[in-house]
Amino acid sequence: MKLGVCYYPEHWPEERWPIDARMMREAGLSRVRIGEFAWSRIEPEPGQFEWAGLDRAIDLLHSEGLEIILGTPTATPPKWLVDSMPEMVALDRDGKPRSFGSRRHYCFSHQGYREQCARITEALATRYGDHPAVVSWQTDNEYGCHDTVQSFSVAARDGFRDWLADRYRTIDALNAAWGNVFWSMEYRSFNEIELPNLTVTEANPSHWLAFRRFSSDQVIAFNRLQVEILRKHSPGRDITHNAMGFYAGYDHFALGEELDVLGWDSYPLGFLETFRFSEADKITYARTGHPDIAAFHHDLYRGCARNGRWSVLEQQPGPVNWARNNPAPHDGMVNLWTMEAAAHGAEMLCYFRWRQAAFAQEQMHAGLLRPNGEPAPALHEAKQSATDLKSINPDSAPDKHAAIIFSYESEWITQIQPQGQDLSAIWAAFSCYSALRENGLNVDFVRPGAALDGYGIAVVPCLPVVSPELVKSLAAFKGQIVLGPRTGSKTADLTIPKNLAPGLLQELIPLTVTRSESLRPGLVHDGDGWRLTRWLDHIEGNAKPDLVCRDGTIASWKHENVRYCAGWPEGSLIREVLARTLAQTSLPVQELPTGLRCVTHASGRYWFNYGPGTANAGEEILPPAGWTFEQFS
Amino acid sequence: MKLGVCYYPEHWPEERWPIDARMMREAGLSRVRIGEFAWSRIEPEPGQFEWAGLDRAIDLLHSEGLEIILGTPTATPPKWLVDSMPEMVALDRDGKPRSFGSRRHYCFSHQGYREQCARITEALATRYGDHPAVVSWQTDNEYGCHDTVQSFSVAARDGFRDWLADRYRTIDALNAAWGNVFWSMEYRSFNEIELPNLTVTEANPSHWLAFRRFSSDQVIAFNRLQVEILRKHSPGRDITHNAMGFYAGYDHFALGEELDVLGWDSYPLGFLETFRFSEADKITYARTGHPDIAAFHHDLYRGCARNGRWSVLEQQPGPVNWARNNPAPHDGMVNLWTMEAAAHGAEMLCYFRWRQAAFAQEQMHAGLLRPNGEPAPALHEAKQSATDLKSINPDSAPDKHAAIIFSYESEWITQIQPQGQDLSAIWAAFSCYSALRENGLNVDFVRPGAALDGYGIAVVPCLPVVSPELVKSLAAFKGQIVLGPRTGSKTADLTIPKNLAPGLLQELIPLTVTRSESLRPGLVHDGDGWRLTRWLDHIEGNAKPDLVCRDGTIASWKHENVRYCAGWPEGSLIREVLARTLAQTSLPVQELPTGLRCVTHASGRYWFNYGPGTANAGEEILPPAGWTFEQFS
Amino acid sequence: MKLGVCYYPEHWPEERWPIDARMMREAGLSRVRIGEFAWSRIEPEPGQFEWAGLDRAIDLLHSEGLEIILGTPTATPPKWLVDSMPEMVALDRDGKPRSFGSRRHYCFSHQGYREQCARITEALATRYGDHPAVVSWQTDNEYGCHDTVQSFSVAARDGFRDWLADRYRTIDALNAAWGNVFWSMEYRSFNEIELPNLTVTEANPSHWLAFRRFSSDQVIAFNRLQVEILRKHSPGRDITHNAMGFYAGYDHFALGEELDVLGWDSYPLGFLETFRFSEADKITYARTGHPDIAAFHHDLYRGCARNGRWSVLEQQPGPVNWARNNPAPHDGMVNLWTMEAAAHGAEMLCYFRWRQAAFAQEQMHAGLLRPNGEPAPALHEAKQSATDLKSINPDSAPDKHAAIIFSYESEWITQIQPQGQDLSAIWAAFSCYSALRENGLNVDFVRPGAALDGYGIAVVPCLPVVSPELVKSLAAFKGQIVLGPRTGSKTADLTIPKNLAPGLLQELIPLTVTRSESLRPGLVHDGDGWRLTRWLDHIEGNAKPDLVCRDGTIASWKHENVRYCAGWPEGSLIREVLARTLAQTSLPVQELPTGLRCVTHASGRYWFNYGPGTANAGEEILPPAGWTFEQFS
Repeated sequence: MKLGVCYYPEHWPEERWPIDARMMREAGLSRVRIGEFAWSRIEPEPGQFEWAGLDRAIDLLHSEGLEIILGTPTATPPKWLVDSMPEMVALDRDGKPRSFGSRRHYCFSHQGYREQCARITEALATRYGDHPAVVSWQTDNEYGCHDTVQSFSVAARDGFRDWLADRYRTIDALNAAWGNVFWSMEYRSFNEIELPNLTVTEANPSHWLAFRRFSSDQVIAFNRLQVEILRKHSPGRDITHNAMGFYAGYDHFALGEELDVLGWDSYPLGFLETFRFSEADKITYARTGHPDIAAFHHDLYRGCARNGRWSVLEQQPGPVNWARNNPAPHDGMVNLWTMEAAAHGAEMLCYFRWRQAAFAQEQMHAGLLRPNGEPAPALHEAKQSATDLKSINPDSAPDKHAAIIFSYESEWITQIQPQGQDLSAIWAAFSCYSALRENGLNVDFVRPGAALDGYGIAVVPCLPVVSPELVKSLAAFKGQIVLGPRTGSKTADLTIPKNLAPGLLQELIPLTVTRSESLRPGLVHDGDGWRLTRWLDHIEGNAKPDLVCRDGTIASWKHENVRYCAGWPEGSLIREVLARTLAQTSLPVQELPTGLRCVTHASGRYWFNYGPGTANAGEEILPPAGWTFEQFS
Repeated sequence: MKLGVCYYPEHWPEERWPIDARMMREAGLSRVRIGEFAWSRIEPEPGQFEWAGLDRAIDLLHSEGLEIILGTPTATPPKWLVDSMPEMVALDRDGKPRSFGSRRHYCFSHQGYREQCARITEALATRYGDHPAVVSWQTDNEYGCHDTVQSFSVAARDGFRDWLADRYRTIDALNAAWGNVFWSMEYRSFNEIELPNLTVTEANPSHWLAFRRFSSDQVIAFNRLQVEILRKHSPGRDITHNAMGFYAGYDHFALGEELDVLGWDSYPLGFLETFRFSEADKITYARTGHPDIAAFHHDLYRGCARNGRWSVLEQQPGPVNWARNNPAPHDGMVNLWTMEAAAHGAEMLCYFRWRQAAFAQEQMHAGLLRPNGEPAPALHEAKQSATDLKSINPDSAPDKHAAIIFSYESEWITQIQPQGQDLSAIWAAFSCYSALRENGLNVDFVRPGAALDGYGIAVVPCLPVVSPELVKSLAAFKGQIVLGPRTGSKTADLTIPKNLAPGLLQELIPLTVTRSESLRPGLVHDGDGWRLTRWLDHIEGNAKPDLVCRDGTIASWKHENVRYCAGWPEGSLIREVLARTLAQTSLPVQELPTGLRCVTHASGRYWFNYGPGTANAGEEILPPAGWTFEQFS
Repeated sequence: MKLGVCYYPEHWPEERWPIDARMMREAGLSRVRIGEFAWSRIEPEPGQFEWAGLDRAIDLLHSEGLEIILGTPTATPPKWLVDSMPEMVALDRDGKPRSFGSRRHYCFSHQGYREQCARITEALATRYGDHPAVVSWQTDNEYGCHDTVQSFSVAARDGFRDWLADRYRTIDALNAAWGNVFWSMEYRSFNEIELPNLTVTEANPSHWLAFRRFSSDQVIAFNRLQVEILRKHSPGRDITHNAMGFYAGYDHFALGEELDVLGWDSYPLGFLETFRFSEADKITYARTGHPDIAAFHHDLYRGCARNGRWSVLEQQPGPVNWARNNPAPHDGMVNLWTMEAAAHGAEMLCYFRWRQAAFAQEQMHAGLLRPNGEPAPALHEAKQSATDLKSINPDSAPDKHAAIIFSYESEWITQIQPQGQDLSAIWAAFSCYSALRENGLNVDFVRPGAALDGYGIAVVPCLPVVSPELVKSLAAFKGQIVLGPRTGSKTADLTIPKNLAPGLLQELIPLTVTRSESLRPGLVHDGDGWRLTRWLDHIEGNAKPDLVCRDGTIASWKHENVRYCAGWPEGSLIREVLARTLAQTSLPVQELPTGLRCVTHASGRYWFNYGPGTANAGEEILPPAGWTFEQFS
């Protein structure tokens, strides 16, 4: 795995550049990501390009042997551009403009802005496409950051109408597919259809799902425009983009198809503080991150990536500025996070950022250097990581143990129609992932319908829309299968299938969900050492009860190699269901102590201790924030 | 009591209709409510009516002997209509349009939309007014649902100015009545008056109260337009409308005056989850509903209805889709709820809905049938109810025990000027209701000023505006009277009466409220087995202390047959005050165990067990969700 | 100290005025504040003044010997004026107008409205400027109340552009100062700059800080316009304005410079309920107010006032209407609050208001009289206070003990860039203030750079921007110094200083903050009897550890007479740091029991008991709500 860093030469005096480049090299870094926010410097006036600064920066970095990932600057169009077409900004769900003054102030559907993006990308690609230092391109930056995928602008509305006309062909087909008769919502033409915001109560969920799909498709199309230009002018360079954490605003499998390498931005402490972890976990893991945060995304994005090529384009090196509370990583964690990425098979890991900015929005975001240019603690750990990677870097893939089947539209559906408070498909996936990892297993994320050869278990945490391809792949699978609630409960248009849930999966397990309940937190059905919470599917059919609560409620059902979990797949219930299932496999299950995790390769096993105390990892005792590689003999 | 069901033939293939109709009849249902969301099918293009489908549906249902309640479809105007006059939609308090895409996307004050409603109502009434199957009409659907009574549109502003000019005649009168001198808010003409939203801080409470009254009056006027057309073209049919739960957006006494039968929509589990019940109650009663939810509304709407004719137009048959969490009713509860409605004197109860929709917004809302057309559990309980009703249906009114005096403007006032966090007049009424029912009593709701003959106790939980008629009726009343805080504290324009609270009621009890405190939750004054919470009125005058806290704070006062409760009428305080008061009556008081309730008729007593355990009901032991009728010998 | 009252003759029948005036005099009041909301009466039609009423009111009050504080009515422009230029209203952060219907419906930057304010002020000043009864003028009312300092209108945007051009001269200078290169936020001219609202994510913090400074300056300029007119037409009268509690919307030091006397409005119970006190404190002190609420503001505004002249322009006399819960003061508290103001050196205290209004927004706000004109409990306490002040009123200043150095921009910075949840500079100041007062000390607030002669300790709770003047004054100071976190961490443009925090203060203490963490509530570092919470600065340099946590974390550092507190200055940590520091001074430290406070003058000591129990105060035992003056022999 290569190491790199994100660098903004335009932020610093040019006389500092050589020092920075030398320090990077000396720290063992070989790649530098630059340029992604520099539009106002590249083109300070409309049509007037100023290349000299960027030319010199690239040459200087090159002279130190550093390889460059060059970003297209389309996440931050300059003020003059926005003023030239003010309607290019997105509108939020309330109809308010999302204006200039920070970043991502554009609507993906605005054709005029797309043309501007093509223009600046072409200018960059023609100038640097053949530069020997430029080994990779990053398109834009963090699509969707600050909730920017959905726009409720006129451009989006017009694009949506066209998209619907393409998809449904006739307005009658759309009315039928969505059930618009329900509340006299029937349209007479595609031009009568509005965006689903600003309705009196919830819009038709089919309407919302179509809009979510359209919005995701717009991101892919926006990205493709740049990819095509870059491929034309800069052949042989890898094209990448940086995805985010616990984020499902667009279909990352679809984006992965477009790129050579799928990158992501790993901020374990910021994510712990920001997302749905318990209060207790937010304290316990405040300075290490929950042990599955980084790993979950490594494995997820490896699954989304075409051919499995992925990297970490931004790695947290110290406190960040954007969470409600921003503690510092425990000593050793930057090194541990780096090695965990390597263990999961990353091609590269870039720290974000080289030097802490002294100004603007992210001035409280740590870098490898302090704002004054002196080393921050992470520089030492980056250097240590470079050394560690020289001695231990199997460049192999983790062994195949468990597969989780996930789709982005599952998360859209649980957001559009939660039915129970805060129930989320991606968090169901995280819960299953965590329970598998606690059993010492490797986990791959696979798209529905992909082959499952080589896995001992396949888990479908919550997948409302089930395709025939998925049924086929599961039917062909010889391992154990666990299906979570809501799986197979919807058609592709977000209606209920004629044969009820789990729909097509009735081929695999002879049961019908006749009624679903969502349960308030605190309303529980106790089992023996576990409890069913938040959801309960009532089942009819010929499957057998597998787990039964003390009051007789059936928490999971079983038929041959298939289990159906009737409660929400979280906490002690999913742990119990998976433990019983794993016992029927030949996977190398080992129950790990709290905070300890491992990744197993053919040649050996990585151990990582995220816990507050020491932990026995194979033959070694790991301190907090410690890791090791146990070579198999 | 008749049983019926809500049905949407337009949602299903026509070949299914005969099966549905037969199954309805076989289940013991005799009435079907149809048509209320079908505008886009009745009039798919402007002015082009398509009657054939509805004709056939009505005839088909008729052929099975089913009686029809036909709804006017004005809650869901089609897109073409909205596009023809986009300003017909309401504006929310922030000024945002409440657009097409769900339902209730109209402003009650828009005259153009009123004309359209008259047109479609006339078209329906002339076509089906004489049809032998059509025995009743429902106007629109759930006025006010999704917070739609108040609109901040230009149409509403203009209507409000006219309404004010009618009411106050001169602008000087309005300025004086509202005290507009206070912050230089004086107007020179009615055309200077704006709606009370978007002010820098709270608008004048008199301004808000006038706007709430105006908004309520617009609902009544909107409804009356349809009623007049229906009466003209469909003589002899009952006209009804379906009110909602814990909802006070308009004056239901006023609506009741306009209708033949006042209906309401009973969703005990959804209401428990949505409204102000404690966390503990939300768990305990998650699958039965709090024991007073349905009963409270039965008795309230019976009181609002002209001549006491009322029904349940929608009855929850299983999990709903619209609460944050949506559990399923305990086995037996659909039958129990049905019998509780009968016990309180409903004319009819309709289950909502016949078959669970497979599409659109309410696809997760249970029906008597599953989405696939097979029976859901509630169908069996509906059938059981039809059988039960044959054997037990006294068709008598509950005995007169206690009267609660309530007005809708009381709730508007506690919303406009809460003075203490979350204090609400309708919840004060609910607390008093619950305390009376826990003592085994029947409760009637009466409008202020109505005669109180026959009651043993009259409770006025929180009635800021007191009319001379009310004083007269209370003075004539021989039973015990309990007055709650804020009663008599305001004039009709929401100012303070010259003689301070309780204003005109000083005729009944010689005291003056000289100061009112609202108390933070947790700031309590303990009594002996009870505590005063949330509010404390300081009193002068010649009434005698009745209940005194340990620290000397006086919690209630007494004079002859009148008590004044100085703390908020909730919890242990109101239980204590009412217990002491009831002890001075000859009412058949019996303290019931938690979760058990009864309704007493001359011929016998209904018992209902909402609790999690068994309960002794007269001579019988009721299981959870059990009920019985104890015949008096 | 004089006593006065706020009075609204326009609210009451003229025949009542003589009774009111006589009762005021008999109660020992000598001043009356009038007129500040009376524009619609003074000028009922554009340009048509009606002076007769105000003439008679002033003469009547004068005839009883009462002195008048006359308010300019610019906080409540009448409807006709707003209708004549609708764009005079402010826009909120979402872009919504803040319209007519309550008060403060104007944008400080609107030049047309400023002209109207000059016009009405001139009209009042020329009519009453020489009136012998008029001894003082109040400009407007509570600048900033209801969050009105910031406006996002076109007028504000244009004013902001001019203000920026004045301050930065060239757009390049601004771009460099703000670091606009960061996200291509560079401008080509001042006319490209927008207000910082409605951005996709946070705007540049330098942008926000400039806008906060601009907004504050607009308040000062708005006020100055009136001051200049009043000084011209009413020479020799004190000009005042009423500031608010826990409010930092504009720079009160700057306002203090413009006025003769700085007033403020003291609502201890409302503030306790509204602001960041713990749940426990909100219960314990519900009827007395936290013991430092009033004192903190007395001392703060004395520090902000030119020459230290200050007063209380509004004093809570009973329950208010505007907090979520509104309890009544404990008997004696109105007297105690009055005497606490005297002890801190107020020139005057006015009760708000004379008689409780029977109408409009504040009808639930108590007065000295009830709405019916009879005495409320506070009238008696006001009278008692007049008597007490005759016997005890040293008219001396409190002894100099401790100085707290505070700037308003510190609070703006912690709001703009909190970095940790809910961390606030003004609350850090309050925590330090409280800890000093618990040690029996007097506290002065001083502006950064002011001389510190005579103090034993100087505390800088949280002052991100440090000026050379402050460094000079601290270097010259012989007492003990305590610096809190974030102090010296920012340049004047809200960027990070080249030498890192504490920037210029490295002259005083040889340390560098190399990394700052913010800590989630619950993530603590325990010391011996204290704990570090919410923030942790990592330090390098030659200062010595002063306080060390059990896990080795260093909580405070020391060098000669300077301490640096590395944790958030609150709770047990700041108590410990200050206790250790005070031990090195010769100040008259005495640890006071909970709820007891004192103010020490040369001649004696005032004691105030806010606690729920009795307290030993010198030789005396004070009951709850008791106070005494201990004369030094």
